[in-house]
Amino acid sequence: MSAELFERLSHELARPRFHDWLRPEPVLANEDGVEIRLPIRSDMSGEREGAFVHGGIVAALVDLAGYAAVACTTGRQAPTVSLQVTYLRPAGGSELLAVATVRREGRRFAHADIEITSAGEVVALGRGLFSFTEVPQ
Amino acid sequence: MSAELFERLSHELARPRFHDWLRPEPVLANEDGVEIRLPIRSDMSGEREGAFVHGGIVAALVDLAGYAAVACTTGRQAPTVSLQVTYLRPAGGSELLAVATVRREGRRFAHADIEITSAGEVVALGRGLFSFTEVPQ
Amino acid sequence: MSAELFERLSHELARPRFHDWLRPEPVLANEDGVEIRLPIRSDMSGEREGAFVHGGIVAALVDLAGYAAVACTTGRQAPTVSLQVTYLRPAGGSELLAVATVRREGRRFAHADIEITSAGEVVALGRGLFSFTEVPQ
Amino acid sequence: MSAELFERLSHELARPRFHDWLRPEPVLANEDGVEIRLPIRSDMSGEREGAFVHGGIVAALVDLAGYAAVACTTGRQAPTVSLQVTYLRPAGGSELLAVATVRREGRRFAHADIEITSAGEVVALGRGLFSFTEVPQ
Repeated sequence: MSAELFERLSHELARPRFHDWLRPEPVLANEDGVEIRLPIRSDMSGEREGAFVHGGIVAALVDLAGYAAVACTTGRQAPTVSLQVTYLRPAGGSELLAVATVRREGRRFAHADIEITSAGEVVALGRGLFSFTEVPQ
Repeated sequence: MSAELFERLSHELARPRFHDWLRPEPVLANEDGVEIRLPIRSDMSGEREGAFVHGGIVAALVDLAGYAAVACTTGRQAPTVSLQVTYLRPAGGSELLAVATVRREGRRFAHADIEITSAGEVVALGRGLFSFTEVPQ
Repeated sequence: MSAELFERLSHELARPRFHDWLRPEPVLANEDGVEIRLPIRSDMSGEREGAFVHGGIVAALVDLAGYAAVACTTGRQAPTVSLQVTYLRPAGGSELLAVATVRREGRRFAHADIEITSAGEVVALGRGLFSFTEVPQ
Repeated sequence: MSAELFERLSHELARPRFHDWLRPEPVLANEDGVEIRLPIRSDMSGEREGAFVHGGIVAALVDLAGYAAVACTTGRQAPTVSLQVTYLRPAGGSELLAVATVRREGRRFAHADIEITSAGEVVALGRGLFSFTEVPQ
């Protein structure tokens, strides 16, 4: 079961062309949600010199983690309708970890909460609303 | 004056390392805000094949456009504290245009609204809260 | 036409029991959205003494104005799914004016932007996502 | 300690004039946050007949619970700057329970997450940003 979900997560992360550059990695998938790792590179920086990741990279990670959590736990495709990101601290270190949890799966949309941590410290909180492309009768 | 603001916008857009890959371009800067163009490339896609930009790219554009609007119109640095993105339509075409307007500049915060259009159609709405690193006495 | 929309707005504002206490008043309704006035009373205050409206009242006004804009312009019922409120200034004076504009009507969702002004000054910005209870085949 | 925090929560909830009508009740306060109960009355309804609470009441509860969590755990006043509410289910039953947790206290602002439950089921999620009126040197 968990192996099947992990397979699905790997598949979802490999699909978008943008991920060829971003390179998010699957860590874990279960019926509650997913964990995704993003190794930090200097070309993701928000500054010319310096270790902090661009806020847009963090937002992209929030988006893709919420999307993947919904896709994996529900088995249904659901594009992002709305996204909220709160930046708590500058995001540095060698990698970011995104933990995305589905808070509710309805017939027509799903809600996910996302936490981004770096070296054990929460650096950003996210929340997303995802709308299923196909709705059961 | 406007030339000075455009200069500042160009400078802000050139600074982050991430922008070497993303390549947002300055279009216009005045006392209300800024306009930024993002040429769409296939390596920004949210799919393996297909023309639609990854939602994370749109979120990154919302973030950087709001940030640039605050930096240019106020002359002060202000990292993003909170970001909201609403996806109205799939974002396709050859380029995205971001129009970012500062809605309020306070002593400690600034608020910006961002609209992302593609071929004249609004594809996403954004709203950001930015906190000044230095507060006047 | 506009008279019909104004009638619908009046009807929507009269329906909820909560509005018997809150007492929002219809000002204008057209195909873009609605305007609603909220006379400020001392029992709406966020302080024991003092003129500023409780943030929860402002949030409620954002919610009901967005909802009414969607109901009036589309003729369809759509409960609030997600709400965002940015407080720009303390909300005082004798009344608040809410201007709610539908930014997009889809098959399943509608999006509305809401501005709250007091004495001509914008005191809060809102954004809402509303999900139609009935979806056309 | 906890008694002192509970006293502070009771004091905060009693202060706003609006709460004379809304009547939120203190349940618990500790160093992480607060719990607040809102008995549901028919005059809070979003319909003419029917048991579901108006979305504006839920938003007001999210606002005041986040505010109270910040005030109690930090001992500092911090007006709401930004609020996000996600409605997961219609909010019915005899009372709502708000659990508000401070996610980060900075020098200039604090972030709180809020969950609203009814009969053990989560009916709404909230997130708020609160800005301290006084900043330590």
